[in-house]
Amino acid sequence: MKNRLLILSRDTNRYESLIKGLGPEDLEIHGLPAEGDAKALVGRCNILLGEPNRIAPHIPAAASLQWVQSTFAGVEPLLTPGSRRDYLLTGVKKVFDPYMGEYVFAYILALERHLFETLENQRNRTWRQRPYQSLADRLIGICGLGSIGRHIARTAKHFNMTVWGFKRKDQRVQDVDRVFTPRNFNGFLKGPDYMVVTLPATDNTRHLFDEAAFGQMKNSAVLINVSRGSIVSEPAVVGALEKGLIKGAVLDVFEKEPLSDKSPLWTCPNLFITPHNAGYSFPEDVVSIFAENYRRFMNRKPLLYQIDFRRGY
Amino acid sequence: MKNRLLILSRDTNRYESLIKGLGPEDLEIHGLPAEGDAKALVGRCNILLGEPNRIAPHIPAAASLQWVQSTFAGVEPLLTPGSRRDYLLTGVKKVFDPYMGEYVFAYILALERHLFETLENQRNRTWRQRPYQSLADRLIGICGLGSIGRHIARTAKHFNMTVWGFKRKDQRVQDVDRVFTPRNFNGFLKGPDYMVVTLPATDNTRHLFDEAAFGQMKNSAVLINVSRGSIVSEPAVVGALEKGLIKGAVLDVFEKEPLSDKSPLWTCPNLFITPHNAGYSFPEDVVSIFAENYRRFMNRKPLLYQIDFRRGY
Repeated sequence: MKNRLLILSRDTNRYESLIKGLGPEDLEIHGLPAEGDAKALVGRCNILLGEPNRIAPHIPAAASLQWVQSTFAGVEPLLTPGSRRDYLLTGVKKVFDPYMGEYVFAYILALERHLFETLENQRNRTWRQRPYQSLADRLIGICGLGSIGRHIARTAKHFNMTVWGFKRKDQRVQDVDRVFTPRNFNGFLKGPDYMVVTLPATDNTRHLFDEAAFGQMKNSAVLINVSRGSIVSEPAVVGALEKGLIKGAVLDVFEKEPLSDKSPLWTCPNLFITPHNAGYSFPEDVVSIFAENYRRFMNRKPLLYQIDFRRGY
Repeated sequence: MKNRLLILSRDTNRYESLIKGLGPEDLEIHGLPAEGDAKALVGRCNILLGEPNRIAPHIPAAASLQWVQSTFAGVEPLLTPGSRRDYLLTGVKKVFDPYMGEYVFAYILALERHLFETLENQRNRTWRQRPYQSLADRLIGICGLGSIGRHIARTAKHFNMTVWGFKRKDQRVQDVDRVFTPRNFNGFLKGPDYMVVTLPATDNTRHLFDEAAFGQMKNSAVLINVSRGSIVSEPAVVGALEKGLIKGAVLDVFEKEPLSDKSPLWTCPNLFITPHNAGYSFPEDVVSIFAENYRRFMNRKPLLYQIDFRRGY
């Protein structure tokens, strides 16, 4: 049987050319055509590849659907209540790990070493040394110890940081000095100088960082969210920064993206906004996962990075 | 025989209290007194500790001098032509390594991930993703493979960078993929995306980075100098940036410090100035070296990090 792949991505042309370049067996490859015959094509294709928010609206019409390969790590648009769960859904993992780690340490180091103030000083021709600490004297908290969280832990250990982690189940994790579970979330919150959020978006993690959570954190702490906007309450983070409950926040993800230009976040003091860019899904990276998964799909083997619809990740 | 230590440092009080706290045997500890009896005291002390630029003017009067412990890694003010070489001169090593490494990667990551432009975008409420590369796709050149250079190489390898190094003698060095020597400096210059200078200031390294050197480098390269200002010609780096021979420069050190507020460097495009702060000599760190060296001095054992007057480092 011929497989039919429909690509629904902001980078459709790039994906089409990369996948064609692989010369996969028994695979017809389609980009989304001009409005009109889209529906018929969706109905005929058994494999979809793309961003979850682009794929979600087509799921009801996908009569032959067997497998969706997401180009993003987070797949919440495909997990809304009542949505179909009668297909294989696979995500991407590991490829983002270095991008995410580099982003997190870019900001940790930039803030610890006052890069932004130093540039301001330069503009004023001001030669002013500022104290700092080595990362070896800092404690990082990693909230979520999936593949991204564990990668960040490894880099933190390279810099000799003290590493705390938070996860659902109590288990030892490499490069993590101390693991906390939901039974002691407050204890976890109290320690970190840098708090990095890498949890998946689920009902349990929604607004995990609210006013109460910020109240437990160090006044000198910096929050860095690279996972999903729903995990951090936006009014609470603005309040926490205005009241000085925490010192800073670096947010790559938001409850609504792109962030509205009316959002109070843009001008909140000590809040750094990046445009959901910490771990970009480069087609080259995603295609290497798709290629391996297509081989497995053809051979009826378990696919890599399959999402558990019940857990949500 | 009683040893007499004179501290000549911007942090004299801190050094005095830290060293007294160690309770060293047979050691009288002096800070520099008010002008007047300084000379007599200098003549009586056999050990000096402090910044080389503060120590240098007192060397001629130091009639009992046996040992100078520098609080800085670079000791050029003590190596001027005709200056005394009849004492032990020791520097500090290793303690700066993490500070230097964190500084270098703060700027590499900040530039690779466009942190400064992203902050500008935020000020304009602009949501704009920008492409970047993983450090794994970047080549770092480390010019000088002493303890700081090797430390930077280790972090570069943690980030899976390709690492080239430049040193006087051809020797394999851990974490360095390819070692270049002065016979092939031009070959070395052509590769790196990020070129980090950690060489000591000597006659051989003076203005090593001149117009010709910048002409060999990639147009997309960024120069990062954390060692000494004399190694980079300041007019040449301004010219190279203006002509686009290189993309950027991060300078922590200058030919004259503090940098004059008339210097054209302050406003040169894509040049980042930091106030000789990459590796601060924290007294706690220096005192741990002094303590070990004092034990060795008492026991007539070779001191740590002794400077070779002939080589200059």
